Amino acid sequence: MNQAKHPLLDHISYPSDLKKLSESDLPQVCDELRDFIIDAVACNPAHFGASLGVVELTVALHYVFNTPDDKLIWDVGHQAYGHKILTGRREQFHSNRKYNGLSGFPNIFESEYDAFTVGHSSTSISAGLGMAMANKLDGNSSRQVVAVIGDGSMTAGMAFEALNNMGISKSNMLVILNDNNMAIDPSVGGLSEYLVDIATSRTYNRLRDDFIRGLEKMKLAGPRSREMIGKFNNTIKSLLTRQTNIFEGLNVRYFGPVDGHDVLHLTKVLSDLKNIPGPKVLHVITKKGKGFKLAEENQTAWHATGVKFDKLTGEKVEVVSERPKPLRYQDVFGHTMVELARANDRIVGVTPAMPSGCSLNIMMAAMPDRAYDVGIAEQHAVTFSAGMAISGYVPFCNIYSTFMQRAYDQVIHDVALQNLRVVFCLDRGGLVGADGATHHGAYDLAYFRAIPNIIVSAPMDERELRNLMYTAQLPGGKGAFSIRYPRGNGVWLDWQMPFEEIPVGKGRLLSQGYDLAFITIGHVGNKVAQVVDTLKASGITCTHVDLRFVKPIDEALLHDVFRRHNKVITVEDGTIVGGMGSAVIEFMVENGYSATVKRLGIPDRFVEHGTQLELYHECGYDKEGILNAVSALLGKPLPHAVVAL
Amino acid sequence: MNQAKHPLLDHISYPSDLKKLSESDLPQVCDELRDFIIDAVACNPAHFGASLGVVELTVALHYVFNTPDDKLIWDVGHQAYGHKILTGRREQFHSNRKYNGLSGFPNIFESEYDAFTVGHSSTSISAGLGMAMANKLDGNSSRQVVAVIGDGSMTAGMAFEALNNMGISKSNMLVILNDNNMAIDPSVGGLSEYLVDIATSRTYNRLRDDFIRGLEKMKLAGPRSREMIGKFNNTIKSLLTRQTNIFEGLNVRYFGPVDGHDVLHLTKVLSDLKNIPGPKVLHVITKKGKGFKLAEENQTAWHATGVKFDKLTGEKVEVVSERPKPLRYQDVFGHTMVELARANDRIVGVTPAMPSGCSLNIMMAAMPDRAYDVGIAEQHAVTFSAGMAISGYVPFCNIYSTFMQRAYDQVIHDVALQNLRVVFCLDRGGLVGADGATHHGAYDLAYFRAIPNIIVSAPMDERELRNLMYTAQLPGGKGAFSIRYPRGNGVWLDWQMPFEEIPVGKGRLLSQGYDLAFITIGHVGNKVAQVVDTLKASGITCTHVDLRFVKPIDEALLHDVFRRHNKVITVEDGTIVGGMGSAVIEFMVENGYSATVKRLGIPDRFVEHGTQLELYHECGYDKEGILNAVSALLGKPLPHAVVAL
Repeated sequence: MNQAKHPLLDHISYPSDLKKLSESDLPQVCDELRDFIIDAVACNPAHFGASLGVVELTVALHYVFNTPDDKLIWDVGHQAYGHKILTGRREQFHSNRKYNGLSGFPNIFESEYDAFTVGHSSTSISAGLGMAMANKLDGNSSRQVVAVIGDGSMTAGMAFEALNNMGISKSNMLVILNDNNMAIDPSVGGLSEYLVDIATSRTYNRLRDDFIRGLEKMKLAGPRSREMIGKFNNTIKSLLTRQTNIFEGLNVRYFGPVDGHDVLHLTKVLSDLKNIPGPKVLHVITKKGKGFKLAEENQTAWHATGVKFDKLTGEKVEVVSERPKPLRYQDVFGHTMVELARANDRIVGVTPAMPSGCSLNIMMAAMPDRAYDVGIAEQHAVTFSAGMAISGYVPFCNIYSTFMQRAYDQVIHDVALQNLRVVFCLDRGGLVGADGATHHGAYDLAYFRAIPNIIVSAPMDERELRNLMYTAQLPGGKGAFSIRYPRGNGVWLDWQMPFEEIPVGKGRLLSQGYDLAFITIGHVGNKVAQVVDTLKASGITCTHVDLRFVKPIDEALLHDVFRRHNKVITVEDGTIVGGMGSAVIEFMVENGYSATVKRLGIPDRFVEHGTQLELYHECGYDKEGILNAVSALLGKPLPHAVVAL
Repeated sequence: MNQAKHPLLDHISYPSDLKKLSESDLPQVCDELRDFIIDAVACNPAHFGASLGVVELTVALHYVFNTPDDKLIWDVGHQAYGHKILTGRREQFHSNRKYNGLSGFPNIFESEYDAFTVGHSSTSISAGLGMAMANKLDGNSSRQVVAVIGDGSMTAGMAFEALNNMGISKSNMLVILNDNNMAIDPSVGGLSEYLVDIATSRTYNRLRDDFIRGLEKMKLAGPRSREMIGKFNNTIKSLLTRQTNIFEGLNVRYFGPVDGHDVLHLTKVLSDLKNIPGPKVLHVITKKGKGFKLAEENQTAWHATGVKFDKLTGEKVEVVSERPKPLRYQDVFGHTMVELARANDRIVGVTPAMPSGCSLNIMMAAMPDRAYDVGIAEQHAVTFSAGMAISGYVPFCNIYSTFMQRAYDQVIHDVALQNLRVVFCLDRGGLVGADGATHHGAYDLAYFRAIPNIIVSAPMDERELRNLMYTAQLPGGKGAFSIRYPRGNGVWLDWQMPFEEIPVGKGRLLSQGYDLAFITIGHVGNKVAQVVDTLKASGITCTHVDLRFVKPIDEALLHDVFRRHNKVITVEDGTIVGGMGSAVIEFMVENGYSATVKRLGIPDRFVEHGTQLELYHECGYDKEGILNAVSALLGKPLPHAVVAL
């Protein structure tokens, strides 16, 4: 990187360096920081638009506040690249989201400047309020707490719960509403429209003050109008000053909106707000992707970049595969939704703010009346789906595995308990790669299978995904039907085969052998199938069962396995504790079998970021890990030829 | 019951009968319905205040709307007794909350008039919006959807998510905000204060209309004021009509507040609203416990009655125990909090709207600055606790097991991932009795033990509860620490023994025997200890291990058990799938043991209501069930003397 390009930034390692600059230098710092981020992400694909949008806010915050003693919490956190670069991590930033490199999100174990580990949306106000309450108990009235939250994140219920509590807390806390009218996709909902109303009414705040002054003046006008005004005056004042605004309705002082790209004005406003005690919101208007034209123009596409790009032209450098590549699972989901919905007019699609992330946008474009983005609102998405199901529709509710944790109660209480057919498509099941610990879909098989009236399935490939989706919408279905699949690509080029019903609870016998049995669920079964082939070439023959359903489990198939085998390896891209392997041994013990069972999957600790392959390796269920387990189970080293393959 | 007491009500079996009456009869119907509810609950303890508060609303709704074709959803549902009595269940109402009797909550399997099964708060708007969206797709614009939700329930994030989505849905739906300023305890938070503001400003709505008319008139006044008005007119109109109100801010039309005890006015308002399309809120002011003086005066105490009472004097008929009774677990929690917090100034208490339900009110009274009711907001409660933990405090966050399902993601993402010491006290773990399927704490052991960095424990008695609480707050603790205990009473009179640290992950060997081993967790261990004694008298000797911790599990103790025994029974008051017994067999298989293990606990289906004893029996882990399991495992009938004991 050309040193001369960033003459100011090059000398900022920590906020203390930033504070040495004069205010008039700040616009240049912002330009350099923005340029640095564009450079870095152009070579190392990552989140993009969000960090560009808050460059000025980031600089102003670190200029005004005394981090890390003052606590700065970035909601979700993919907008915190500038923050990382200004807080001791500029030199390592090239390792962003790489194995053993920086996390793509603020992480308390990475830096003392990261006040709270984030990743899922809408946690920042709750966390900040806890910190503010602690300051209050400590008698520390000077330590500031600032939470920066996007308008999209503000739609999640958790943020509202926190605001509601904040209103009565009397603790010192500043919420900065970073309003760009976007989450990954455009923000939806009444709140979003409301914020646009406020923001576009440029005179909103000035007006309020002017009006009250105006009323005073009018008292000096003719007696008739004076009388009229007298009648309304007090109550109007109260309406205008206390009840004109959602935040003030919740007892939280509201300031703004202000231009989020005017760093000097931001610095002034933040300095003023530091001295105003109590709970308050500053409404800042920003543009996602600010300063990179293409990202400004197509904010969803440039939310994250995915591949390298030319920073001048914006041209994305797609890795050209030598052979055609199978589709991503999520796109198979998206296209199959349209296909199924065309044939079955009871099908609807539901996503909590992930239309492009889960590819429901394909259906939203094809049949907008039957596919709903309900906002960052997993809880609502599930119970809304239950309401449609009880009215005779078949909702396909697509929620990333990790975000489904937000709606666990609703699945139990509103869907399973009423035995309603809601189809849950859990994208990003298993290790997700670069997004890391906050985003791995590790627990769904374990937490879902404990629920009655639920079908828990995972397809081994995208044809199976299609057939499970087809099966789930057949008439007469009862209860929740969960279908989980991973981030990434399937295995077939000709994925769009005619639909076939899959009998619920029926697994598949993929190969029959003598030495040991593999029981797998989901996409990882493809890896195991390769291993089975490899072993076969060396004279080790394996049975391989693709369970397809963790619940109900295929008892006939398992009886068959345990009658033939006393050495079994289970493999799943999910937590070992309580997951599919656990279900298998529950069956085994209940039925009086006693095989040696080795369970492979995500271990009982949090796994950080890296490529999916790096993480499978770390967790011991890549090819090498599986072969090691075979070797251990057979009690002998494998032929050299096998290991080397 | 005296037939002549309810001359109108006696002839109302269904809403169709109600509709035959003239409007002028409705006040009398309300009086009779209220009297019927008081009579019924006086003899059969149940929820009380909420149903009295909505008598007029219930009568008006069924008079105006065309249930069950129109969909009426009661949020939470403990206010729906009047609804049940008017919809075919008057004669069975004496069986309310009893085994095989009516459910204490609306239940779709009980009546077609119950449009949605409820129990947990704040689901009604989401469910209703799903139904309204279905009506829209069906092209049915006449079918109405009405959700009745309390101001307490409105504080939960899920309700906000639904309102936010409702604002853009353009579907026909009416939300009735039943504002009594109470949940079980008084409602807290900015929203609650806001609603009081609106409600006490009696002229609020009239004023708005008057003011706009006033502005028109003023145009006719002197030129100076006309000019002034002209300047502000449009924007003010917009402020007043679109932005004066949280609901209208969310694009939902707001009506009210109206008196919820004036049945004739309610009937008129509801009839009018039927004809107004789109999403709308009617704000109704009611008094919890209305019509029963004592319940009006002490709304928390009369939220549910617990025991029979004299309907004239209100005197509660306490069952006088012949011997002194051990305290309830929840009270041991409450008193112990104060004791621990007095010794450790870092301890704070957090409850989401359950101060009296979990007895944190004891601490709130003793040290109000250190115990927080954060509203019906489980998600926020957990992450708020994480914010305090990261600031050096030790929060004890008390959430009923069944409601912890709402905060599963926050436990994983905001507590465990950051390895923060937050102590989760899960009251009502296991079968809860009369509240039934929506409220059983069945899944926590299973869903918690899948998470890394969490300690999952359950005390066998209240002394152990105290010692676990003591252990959890010792300096240097890392990670989540969950302590779950049941609804009901402990077993000791002298519960307040000096604190002793319990080594984390260490179980207890309660007895050593030869014939089989019991492994138990939690309070149900007391029942097993009795069974062990009984069996011993007949020459059958058992090992009994109280695990205390499901995670980390006591491996040394389990090695000892499996070395000595090949017949093991696990007993837990929680789901069999994935629970403690599953953890035990995971250990067993991993370590190469092969015992016959019978797991007792809550089966893989939803369990309805009844007394706890009735439900333990149904699920096969009361004394009889445990003895049956012993007999089956030993392969022989037990001596007659044992079974008869």
